[in-house]
Amino acid sequence: MAAVKACKILITGANRGLGLEMVKQLSEDSCQKHHIFATCRDPDGPKSEELRELVKKHPSVITIIRLDADDPCSIKESAKKVGSLVGKSGLNLLVNNAAIVANGTILTSRVEDMKNTFNTNVIGPLLIIREYLPILQTAAKASGTPGMSCNKAAVINISTLGGSMTRMPSMYGQFPVLPYCVSKAGFNMLTVLAAEELKPNEILCMALHPGWVKTELGGEKAPLEPKESVEGMLRVIGSLTEKEHAAFMDYTGETLPW
Amino acid sequence: MAAVKACKILITGANRGLGLEMVKQLSEDSCQKHHIFATCRDPDGPKSEELRELVKKHPSVITIIRLDADDPCSIKESAKKVGSLVGKSGLNLLVNNAAIVANGTILTSRVEDMKNTFNTNVIGPLLIIREYLPILQTAAKASGTPGMSCNKAAVINISTLGGSMTRMPSMYGQFPVLPYCVSKAGFNMLTVLAAEELKPNEILCMALHPGWVKTELGGEKAPLEPKESVEGMLRVIGSLTEKEHAAFMDYTGETLPW
Repeated sequence: MAAVKACKILITGANRGLGLEMVKQLSEDSCQKHHIFATCRDPDGPKSEELRELVKKHPSVITIIRLDADDPCSIKESAKKVGSLVGKSGLNLLVNNAAIVANGTILTSRVEDMKNTFNTNVIGPLLIIREYLPILQTAAKASGTPGMSCNKAAVINISTLGGSMTRMPSMYGQFPVLPYCVSKAGFNMLTVLAAEELKPNEILCMALHPGWVKTELGGEKAPLEPKESVEGMLRVIGSLTEKEHAAFMDYTGETLPW
Repeated sequence: MAAVKACKILITGANRGLGLEMVKQLSEDSCQKHHIFATCRDPDGPKSEELRELVKKHPSVITIIRLDADDPCSIKESAKKVGSLVGKSGLNLLVNNAAIVANGTILTSRVEDMKNTFNTNVIGPLLIIREYLPILQTAAKASGTPGMSCNKAAVINISTLGGSMTRMPSMYGQFPVLPYCVSKAGFNMLTVLAAEELKPNEILCMALHPGWVKTELGGEKAPLEPKESVEGMLRVIGSLTEKEHAAFMDYTGETLPW
């Protein structure tokens, strides 16, 4: 099971799909002293019911925080709130998981879908990394150990093979999701530039592909269950060192081409 | 000199920098029967004076067309106009050159700059390829020859090494232009997906890095003159075959990593 020992963890888009499954597995890992900030757009809405049920089971482990990746004010407010909750130990692990998908090809992609996917999947994570950087730095300093790991301070960007220029074209016929792919290629660039910027702070940063998973995004035909994908991702996250800084890997630990 | 034999050529952002130099070199190549549609945002404005002077020298070779990559209506209108001018021979070569740059890092990038670079450098070319596709298809059919080449029908996307996840991080200290790099990574994804979609029509599509050039974008410190960069790019463009379909190359013909 999860080898993630990080104390304070924040996961965006935590009310459904992979985000929810990640909160679930981490909160059930009784060997570790996690505290999980599970963020979502609408904590009180019907789409967050499963997350609220999970909190009832683990009230001292999970805190729900409102964060809409498409709304800079909500990002700022959430960081302020989490900052005051984590205090001097800082935030160890930030998982940028929230994302939206949109269908389309060169011929059919809607301008609005291009803009919305870019806002949520790229500008959102940019602002989230920026606003949470001070408490990630706090955690990095507080750790007292050299090198990089997700138990010290890290940003994990949940990306996709759909953002790979090398691999996506052969899948395009089956997945005509151009706005999504374009945004994820931009997200991968954000990851490597953030990695460059965070290096002096010894904050690990990399992009992780969850596999093709049965979720609202992945659809019914996907071969992977969320449980298996998240087990794999947590294994990878727990094992990361400075060697994987700025890497692009999948849930099995395989390195992917850009 | 230029080995580009394409008859009907359209170049966006043709009023300055590399776009203007490309129009210049192509219009001075008296061995070929080019007709060049030189597009820019404001054909009558002070920033288009050099282009207007060039047209006075070669009035039968260059036609200026208004096209603002950030304005879907102007893209549609320009395609209608060019379509009626090229008639049954279609458009052989579309060069997506227009682009804007914006400075910034994870800490300093402005949301507006993220949105503007994405609109002009990604959504603009997407809509341009879409609207010009019918007359590119006309040219491909009219050619009567098998295979792919820029003399038949092609889309050349002027990209940058700054859009390379592999190469950009080491240059980031010198060029802190995150919004630009993120948009160009998205543009590279657009290129490979467009290539996939245009393959059945035998329309060549690839991404070309002009080198680091002394232009408004490249700045004074750049080692390359626009003349040398464009000579190289035209040599590469003229030599492309289906083997380079979906490729990422520089002005010397070297293949670049994504």
